[in-house]
Amino acid sequence: MTTPKEFSSAALALIDELNSRRAVIGILGMGYVGQPLALRFSQLGYRVLGLDIDAEKVAQLNVGHSQIEHISDAAIQAANHAGMECTTDFSRAREADALILCVPTPLNKYREPDLSYVTKTIDSIVPYLRAGQVVSLESTTYPGTTEEEMLPRVAATGLAVGEEIFLVYSPEREDPGNTDFTTNSIPKVVGGHTAACLEVGKALYGQAIDRIVPVSSTKAAEMTKLLENIHRAVNIGLVNEMKIVADRMGIDIFEVIDAAATKPFGFTAYYPGPGLGGHCIPIDPFYLTWKAREYGLHTRFIELSGEINRAMPEYVVGKVVKALNERRLSLHGSKALVLGISYKKNVDDMRESPAVEVMELLRAAGADVAYSDPHVPVFPKMREHKFNLSSVPLTAETLASYDVLVLTTDHAKFDYELIALNARLIVDSRGIYRTPASNIVKA
Amino acid sequence: MTTPKEFSSAALALIDELNSRRAVIGILGMGYVGQPLALRFSQLGYRVLGLDIDAEKVAQLNVGHSQIEHISDAAIQAANHAGMECTTDFSRAREADALILCVPTPLNKYREPDLSYVTKTIDSIVPYLRAGQVVSLESTTYPGTTEEEMLPRVAATGLAVGEEIFLVYSPEREDPGNTDFTTNSIPKVVGGHTAACLEVGKALYGQAIDRIVPVSSTKAAEMTKLLENIHRAVNIGLVNEMKIVADRMGIDIFEVIDAAATKPFGFTAYYPGPGLGGHCIPIDPFYLTWKAREYGLHTRFIELSGEINRAMPEYVVGKVVKALNERRLSLHGSKALVLGISYKKNVDDMRESPAVEVMELLRAAGADVAYSDPHVPVFPKMREHKFNLSSVPLTAETLASYDVLVLTTDHAKFDYELIALNARLIVDSRGIYRTPASNIVKA
Repeated sequence: MTTPKEFSSAALALIDELNSRRAVIGILGMGYVGQPLALRFSQLGYRVLGLDIDAEKVAQLNVGHSQIEHISDAAIQAANHAGMECTTDFSRAREADALILCVPTPLNKYREPDLSYVTKTIDSIVPYLRAGQVVSLESTTYPGTTEEEMLPRVAATGLAVGEEIFLVYSPEREDPGNTDFTTNSIPKVVGGHTAACLEVGKALYGQAIDRIVPVSSTKAAEMTKLLENIHRAVNIGLVNEMKIVADRMGIDIFEVIDAAATKPFGFTAYYPGPGLGGHCIPIDPFYLTWKAREYGLHTRFIELSGEINRAMPEYVVGKVVKALNERRLSLHGSKALVLGISYKKNVDDMRESPAVEVMELLRAAGADVAYSDPHVPVFPKMREHKFNLSSVPLTAETLASYDVLVLTTDHAKFDYELIALNARLIVDSRGIYRTPASNIVKA
Repeated sequence: MTTPKEFSSAALALIDELNSRRAVIGILGMGYVGQPLALRFSQLGYRVLGLDIDAEKVAQLNVGHSQIEHISDAAIQAANHAGMECTTDFSRAREADALILCVPTPLNKYREPDLSYVTKTIDSIVPYLRAGQVVSLESTTYPGTTEEEMLPRVAATGLAVGEEIFLVYSPEREDPGNTDFTTNSIPKVVGGHTAACLEVGKALYGQAIDRIVPVSSTKAAEMTKLLENIHRAVNIGLVNEMKIVADRMGIDIFEVIDAAATKPFGFTAYYPGPGLGGHCIPIDPFYLTWKAREYGLHTRFIELSGEINRAMPEYVVGKVVKALNERRLSLHGSKALVLGISYKKNVDDMRESPAVEVMELLRAAGADVAYSDPHVPVFPKMREHKFNLSSVPLTAETLASYDVLVLTTDHAKFDYELIALNARLIVDSRGIYRTPASNIVKA
């Protein structure tokens, strides 16, 4: 990397601090994204400061307790031992040379971007910004956020952006539960507000991440993350629509997808399911939808996928009603066991899980609802859902005691043979059971 | 492969003929799909009979002239030498043990399936069908075609399907111009009307193709091919929509796609362009749309992609008008040179090429239109388009003589440096030129 000599001495000094790992890294928001990033920097010898508004989380981290299933206590403890500190005192942002924002960007109930976590976080550190710092936003958001929301706040300090203080956007690409890739082996896209900002951004992540992908602007970096998740939402929407068509024609969509996936070019397999879950795919695309309106544009693929994907829990419950009806049972009064309630395979993450929507619909229709999930021993507190339930252990007896099992999330820990052997009726929304059987219905 | 003993002796005998390469292979329709398949069987020692209604094509093939750019005369001559014969005499279908239909399945002007090539072909061989034959349909079509259109005609011979005569559906996956894969290295999906039909189908292709992918029904095989092409049409539609949004926001979609493609999971790059071309992607999806209506279903992703992709030539021409206008020129009266008019890179195939649509729109607006394409020396006869033009050789002088160059198809043979150096204005719909320049406009 050649550093043009026209960069300011503050830029050159900061780049040097970052490259030599003497810089202090401040992580704002110690959640699914912030924690693995903090651990990675700590492992490399950087001093790490974790800032979070959640006092309980901070206290737990400081005594070495991870609250995320796939992050071990030992990893937190090792980082603490190496000097990582967590705090709710945002004035300590002044100590950090780099400030990385890893806060949520949800939607409000009108499906509009809720940037309040981003703006509150930047507002709370603005009083403590100083020359020689870099601020990096990692939260997924619409193109223009860094220029329109971050820049004015950082510039209001009077510090010259690109000369004294540096601003970058670098989207997180964390994929909890993905065992093939870790924080460092996932290439990192970085856009800078100026050429010097980009150079600082490359130095910020250059030690921690194997491959940095610089782009020409913060807007391009923002759009990159959205495109990744829009691609996914649309492809899942497409196979969900194809599932409905294939089902009506008497064709098993899972068999078709697997056959299509043997084409060695031009096709990538996506699988249907009971709907979209997680903190990204159901939400992020609508950030672009909202911003596009400002330009008089309508993002039709995003709207269509949203519509189809959001209708999938209803589709699954419709299949349950139909299958019970064929057995002369009403859903009202039936005992239903939902299998797998986290939003994806082998994780405990419940955010936006469509399985919960299925549980709500079953309960609303009068079913007696229970669930089993090896990753979720007790149904957690959720903002919009309340179930006083614990995970039902799967035995021959418990399985046989339900009128219907609704398979919503595939977990490696499930014993599918035991389930099939003892279930009266399984409604399978994950394509687990491929061989037709009298007690299995595809949904 | 174990052959269950309940299969008929006709099935077992035919399987043996096919496995031992003693079978005669009849190919019906010697075009982009039929020719490479015929050559492959011939190379393996099978005797091949090529049947086609086009007497001129048959005569050319019999004297060793290929009419397809990527198939050499030498390859045809070698096959002829090994015994391949082409004929318009469909009564000779009787000689063949296998009859493989590789005929077009276009849309009529109401975007409805036109199965006339399939039905005419099967009708023309029905009088010559005999026990011990297998009939395989390779044409892309809606789920149910084999059962609804092929089966009744084959069964009308009085021969017992699955006992005396065998019926399979196995979609072609030819990708002209793809140098990474050849006919034999692209796995082949096969569905049979009965278990015996499937077994015969596996034997039919088992010698010629490295990997056979059996599926449970002809319907599943039909749906597989459609899903592959729907996936592609939808993904291209999506990036075309994203291009329009990104462009309005001042973001280069090609830069964004390349950055997103560095994500090692969950993303596959598709690129925008001036519209969809070829005999598959713009057409095949609507076969499912049509059939789905019978089931009361509307295939919304297919309709949306069709709408967006079909609007792209207009979008490109809109960019041309805007760019000329900024230079105080009207399109009316301007000299426009369209670069690349085949439907995709490095091939001579003009079918459904969106570049031709761009040429039509430019001409309709009053431009003086020319084209340059190293693969298309003379503008061919097309059903719906007429241009009395030859390819303009690209020199510094010719390039400089046009008001605008419209880059519609990327060919490796183009000298892009020469073009950029001499063009007054380039409207680039393929993302060739990434560095901003005063004479380059992205479309």
